[in-house]
Order: sequence, then structure tokens, then C-alpha cells
Amino acid sequence: MPWLTGKVYLVGAGPGSSDLLTVRAAEILKRADIVFHDALVYPDTLRLATAALKIAVGKRCGRYATAQKFINKRLVDAARRFKTVVRLKGGDPMLFGRAQEEIAALQAAGVAYEVVPGVTAAAAASAELGVSLTRRGVSRNVVFVTPRTGAGETVHDWAASVVAADTAVIYMGSGQAASIAERLISRGLPPATPAVVVENASLPQRRTIKLTLSELPEIAELAMEGPATIMLGEVFAAVEENASSLFPQPVLAAVR
Amino acid sequence: MPWLTGKVYLVGAGPGSSDLLTVRAAEILKRADIVFHDALVYPDTLRLATAALKIAVGKRCGRYATAQKFINKRLVDAARRFKTVVRLKGGDPMLFGRAQEEIAALQAAGVAYEVVPGVTAAAAASAELGVSLTRRGVSRNVVFVTPRTGAGETVHDWAASVVAADTAVIYMGSGQAASIAERLISRGLPPATPAVVVENASLPQRRTIKLTLSELPEIAELAMEGPATIMLGEVFAAVEENASSLFPQPVLAAVR
Repeated sequence: MPWLTGKVYLVGAGPGSSDLLTVRAAEILKRADIVFHDALVYPDTLRLATAALKIAVGKRCGRYATAQKFINKRLVDAARRFKTVVRLKGGDPMLFGRAQEEIAALQAAGVAYEVVPGVTAAAAASAELGVSLTRRGVSRNVVFVTPRTGAGETVHDWAASVVAADTAVIYMGSGQAASIAERLISRGLPPATPAVVVENASLPQRRTIKLTLSELPEIAELAMEGPATIMLGEVFAAVEENASSLFPQPVLAAVR
Repeated sequence: MPWLTGKVYLVGAGPGSSDLLTVRAAEILKRADIVFHDALVYPDTLRLATAALKIAVGKRCGRYATAQKFINKRLVDAARRFKTVVRLKGGDPMLFGRAQEEIAALQAAGVAYEVVPGVTAAAAASAELGVSLTRRGVSRNVVFVTPRTGAGETVHDWAASVVAADTAVIYMGSGQAASIAERLISRGLPPATPAVVVENASLPQRRTIKLTLSELPEIAELAMEGPATIMLGEVFAAVEENASSLFPQPVLAAVR
């Protein structure tokens, strides 16, 4: 064997569409021997890994904790059997991707690794909406945040980071839209703050819903199954006039 | 002529390295007739636009205001002469890219446009450092912010958004490192907060400096010319042990 252990690539799959992968990620997938992928990675992207064994290690909301240690172990084991091991994650691996836990496991086992960055869902959603996340005179900053909290966490209050920012993108929050809206309004964010929910950004089945913060609980009726971002801030007041020309199929389906 | 006006693509060039473009961006560059690019776009990336006229419309820090209207006009004019017009911007077009002003000009002139997202500098820097921007139990959010302020701006206080976040990435701030540190410390951010400055992420000439918030003013001595991000937060306490194995050339050059 020409190698002692293989190398593990933590690769960002981007927002969904397979041509929104980076060129580097596409090349690594092409020569991958084995790919461990999230459940939400789009099939067209997986097909780029023509020669690889493909293993879903999908974690969906609510079933994170038990799965992560098992994934870490499988990555280390695979590096002892294969030359090019890919851990393919939706979006960018370093944003809400639990990458640090996998990196720590690889380092502890002496396995070489490399992280390949990706386009995050918010960037793709913003591009499709034609509305920039930052905007001169309106928004000089944007926070990316997840409202999920686990036992024993001592991190900053997520709502405080949203209230202090000009633009906010909430990841993995569509299942708790009602409590998010309630919390943010109680912290002083105006109920009329423009909001956009984008599900499956960059994919044919995408859905975009324009509303306000106080109307956010209504998205519970939409039964979202794909990855969705909730975007909040004055910049999104511009969505209605821009979006219609950008989407080939009917979107901006009013939930009211 | 098979078209009345061409289409303008606002394309993210990614952090620097030409293989960190998206596949879609690379394809559009290949068929571009004309490319208007920022001064900081890497030459290897521009070379992908084999058939295009290439025009630098570089805006460097401090010379923004006068140039933007002229760039808007050139994009509209180009769309009347060429089929595929590219506006190539460092990183992601919708993050600190002044894209909204260009989109508004294109819409007003009735020119079709499309935004192609890109990998932002922070994602590339995080990947190279092997340190995730978010991390379970340490950071559940990250703010991307620029401290630049213009006349008449009514946006939120940038420092407040940093103080409220678990992780912060400051764009276009390396020239004002001393005042950034002073402001954040006066707002209550601990002087010992771990900080990393990454210049030219993903390029051979990259530099990475690990320090603390109170030491940030020392980077003024480094005469940074490339795009640099200042990254702050507890997650970066892990940088020292991780970074050495990831960089082929000496980095983490201590400025002290």
C-alpha cells in the first residue's frame, strides 16, 4: 500500500445545486474512495463522486448527539482503509457543521485532514433574492445564528446577537419559528421587521416566503423538509420588488 | 444580433485561490465577453476568463464613494454591447460587496442580471486554521461586520454586534486595528479575547497572526496589502495547536 493512512477531506457541499460546489470540492469528490454525507446533500452533488462508496450519515434536527461520536469513529476507521475519504457537509463545514468535533477526533487519531470551504445557504438565498445581506446605510453587519441550545451550554444568548445585528440569518430554526418570533419580539425587535424564509436555496424545489417577524409562526403550516434559513432585517424590505423576476417558478407564496 | 441587451453576472470570486470559485462561476467566466474586476481578484482567477476583455475597477479602502456610480454606469453600458458581462468581486458579492447599488442600477436600466454566490474570506480562513467559526458549547453564532462608517449612516453600532456575538469576523478593518481594539475593550470585550488576523486566505502569500484583542494594534507594523480579516472569539483559543500542521510555509509569525 502506498500510504499508511488516508486523508480525510471535510468538504462543503454548498447550498444545494451541484454547480455551487467549489472547483476544488468537485475535484476531490471525483477522486474520492468513500464519501460520508449528510442526509440533506443533493443527489446530483453525490453523483460527482463517481468512484466512491457513498454512506449517508444523515443527522436531522433533534438526533444529533448520539450520532456524532459514531461518525467520528467511522471517519478514522475509513482513513485506515482508503486513500481519499470525504466528509461532505451541507453549506460550509465551519458554519454549524460540527466540524470541530470531527477535526478533534482525526487529530487525536493522527489522521491527516483538510477542510474545503463552501458557499453557505445564506449567500445562495441572498443571491436568488437579489438582496444583499449588507447594504450601505442600512446594514453593516450580519449575524449567522442557530437558536438550538443543548444541556450545559454557556454560550451567549442567541437572541441578543440577533437584536444587536443589522441583518440576521437563523439556521436550523424553521421548526421553532413561533418561539423564535416570540423571543425576539420580547427582546425589543419590532414585530414589523421584514423577514424572508428560504427553503432549499439554489434547488428547483426552493420556496421563498416573505413576511414579517410577527407573522413568522405561520410558516409552521408549510411543513418544511429541506434546509431553510430565516432571514431578518431591513434589507429584506426590498424583497418583493426584486424577487419576482428572479425565480422561474412561482415563489413568494404568501402564507396568509 | 441575437440579443437586445446582454446579461450581467455579479460573481463571487471567492477568497483568492482560483479553485475556490464555484463551478458555476468558473463556467460563466469561461464564456464571458467582458469582466469588470476588483483590484484584489487574484490573477489566476482572471485567467479563467480566456476570451474576455478584463477591466480593473479596483476600489481600495478609502476610495469607495466616487468610484461606485462610475462602475454602475459601465456595467449598464457593457450590457448594451456584450452578451455576457461579469462583475467579479472578491469573496461573496452579497457580503460587503456593494452589490445592491449595482443591482439597483441594472434594474433601473432594465438589464437582466444574476448573482452567483461565493465563498467568503472567513470560511477560507477558518478552513485553513482548522478552527470552526461555530462550535458546540462555545459559539452558536458568528457576526460578519465592517467597522467602516459613512456620513449619514443610521445603522446599528458595529461594536455592539461584535460584543453580543460569540464569534466575530471583522472585514476591511486591518487598517484601523488600534481603534477597533480600543472600542471593543471599552465596550466590555475582555482584552485577552483570542484573536487571529488572516491576510490573503487561501493564497500562497497568506499570513496568519495569532494574538489577543489587546495586542491587535501591533498588526499595524505588518503593512498588510492584501484582503485581511480580523477574527475574534473563544473558538480561536484553539488556533495554536491546530495551525502548524496545516500550513506548508511558516505562518503564525508572532508579531511580538
